[in-house]
Amino acid sequence: MSAPEVVLLAGGAGTRLWPVSREARPKQFFRIEGVSLLAESFGRAQRIAANGGARPDAAHENVWAVVTAALAASTRAELPLLPPANLLAEPERRNTAAAIGWAAIEVKRRRGGDAVLAVLPADQHVANVDAFAAAAARAVALARDGRLVTMGIRPTRPETGYGWLETGASLGDGAFQLARFVEKPDRARAEEFFARPERFLWNAGIFFFRADRMLAEIATHMPMLAGALAEIEASPARLPEIYAALPRDLPSIDYGVMERAADVACVAAGEVGWSDVGSWAALRDVLPRDERTHNVALGDPILIDTERSIVDARDQANVKVVAVVGVRDVCVVVTDDAVLVCAVDQAQRVKDVVEAIRKTKKTEVL
Amino acid sequence: MSAPEVVLLAGGAGTRLWPVSREARPKQFFRIEGVSLLAESFGRAQRIAANGGARPDAAHENVWAVVTAALAASTRAELPLLPPANLLAEPERRNTAAAIGWAAIEVKRRRGGDAVLAVLPADQHVANVDAFAAAAARAVALARDGRLVTMGIRPTRPETGYGWLETGASLGDGAFQLARFVEKPDRARAEEFFARPERFLWNAGIFFFRADRMLAEIATHMPMLAGALAEIEASPARLPEIYAALPRDLPSIDYGVMERAADVACVAAGEVGWSDVGSWAALRDVLPRDERTHNVALGDPILIDTERSIVDARDQANVKVVAVVGVRDVCVVVTDDAVLVCAVDQAQRVKDVVEAIRKTKKTEVL
Repeated sequence: MSAPEVVLLAGGAGTRLWPVSREARPKQFFRIEGVSLLAESFGRAQRIAANGGARPDAAHENVWAVVTAALAASTRAELPLLPPANLLAEPERRNTAAAIGWAAIEVKRRRGGDAVLAVLPADQHVANVDAFAAAAARAVALARDGRLVTMGIRPTRPETGYGWLETGASLGDGAFQLARFVEKPDRARAEEFFARPERFLWNAGIFFFRADRMLAEIATHMPMLAGALAEIEASPARLPEIYAALPRDLPSIDYGVMERAADVACVAAGEVGWSDVGSWAALRDVLPRDERTHNVALGDPILIDTERSIVDARDQANVKVVAVVGVRDVCVVVTDDAVLVCAVDQAQRVKDVVEAIRKTKKTEVL
Repeated sequence: MSAPEVVLLAGGAGTRLWPVSREARPKQFFRIEGVSLLAESFGRAQRIAANGGARPDAAHENVWAVVTAALAASTRAELPLLPPANLLAEPERRNTAAAIGWAAIEVKRRRGGDAVLAVLPADQHVANVDAFAAAAARAVALARDGRLVTMGIRPTRPETGYGWLETGASLGDGAFQLARFVEKPDRARAEEFFARPERFLWNAGIFFFRADRMLAEIATHMPMLAGALAEIEASPARLPEIYAALPRDLPSIDYGVMERAADVACVAAGEVGWSDVGSWAALRDVLPRDERTHNVALGDPILIDTERSIVDARDQANVKVVAVVGVRDVCVVVTDDAVLVCAVDQAQRVKDVVEAIRKTKKTEVL
């Protein structure tokens, strides 16, 4: 029984952690206590491979990353243990279905169609890796049996920004038949879901499946993508033109495959301390805080009479001092070329800032 | 009747507008709409000289500046019209009494003992120069008659951070005998004063007097300083050693002379829009604001859902973008090497920040 191949989806763009995150250094490069989310995810991937049977000292050989070409060099630099052949660089950014489909045919070619893939976004944070790896091991086992498996995260708030999972019949040991995927709910429904944690979980975009099963599902539900993947399989050198011909609005793997497939299982992860690190507010809630003030201080800011705030004043070439006085629930983020001050409860509006910057043409800070 | 000699006290140190103000570029170099407070004060000084009889196109010849040696070059650069001989560079910083005493002996030597001096701090802002110059003309006239004259500013709030003036009998035309100087009051007394604007005014440190009258008062009330000034008068080349020998805790002109002198007059300035620009909060209140949001934006910050705040994002070599989202009553000040975020009502605590920086040894940002 071979160990799973763990595929990091590391092509993420986006600037929700602007001004630290940039188009050229998106969220997966964000560092928590010196370690990028990408490197942290790589470590998690090694644990999943080792738990699934890989030799611990060779588990990195079972880790893959799908990135966009623009991020290939920086991803390689960030993950020195990633085998070069396991870095799949998409010539152009498409949606997760293309990335996962391509990974499936590559894994099938090199490891066989019955190889199990575990697919993880590479820009998430998990505090409790032991618990996470244990849940993943259960998911890998279910995937070996031929199931599509999704990992459900125990909700910690009535979040309207995520998709949710509704579980069905128990499969034992924290696993369930998946009743359905639920689109991002409105506030009232999110509250309703949050009140029933035994039934409703967060969809974190973490999936497990055999290569041949996924390729069969793509053939059924996304025939255009399946055709492209077959062409890539036949003529790998033609990848750039085949990718270029893929529609830009290709659906995500969730919408294109998982929601339409029968017989999807769900493994409920326990208290894993998961975060999608989707905003400065999310970071404030996930990072170690001062016990008295509840501030999260990155770098060495001067904080006076300040509470429940997150201040990122990490080493910059030019900015030497960041001082914050007399505020509550504020994000202050300082880089050498851009500064953000934002109420924590408005942190999602960083996207509006990015839009405003696009209009100013000062796009070198994006 | 000769025009007054207008002396700018431009030796001010202090970092209340940190991080824009620095030890090497103190508050008088702070720019409002492109013009430093120092240059603005110079313009005001020219108006006072011209109103007092100087030819308008030569009024700059009646303007003087007393600075510390460390600021001499930058002051000269900021005031190209200041006659070089009128720049008095103190070898070491002492209090206002020494600066004013030295200016008085220099003016006496070059213009005669009956010359009138108008003394202005060079780091204040006055919005309505016409009204200010009119009040100054009245003060100059009273000083010509041999009086010590102080200008009183109409209070706009019950300020506990300033000294106040209590007026006595009217001398007509907005002038009064001064009943007394009042030390910085506590809150209750400040409220009491503020409720009686016909009687209580702010002391702005703006004085008018004949050179010989001031030197006589110094001889009476500050004999040690008078002795030093006499030595300087006799041997100008010995200035550095004489200054060095002056005690560091020499009283201010207010405390050392004005409060002890008899027969002090006070001219009440009307709606002159005076500000000592003593904090970022004071700046917020004095600078042009957006009508809808009441924000003061310097430079071109991105402001989203932000109100009653002051954001200084003026051109920096490196920092290109400053974005502020979802906050109220906050000061955000960005330079290339230091960033301040401060609740407006805590703006006076910038001094605590400066103290904290001294302890960190990152004193290059001060």
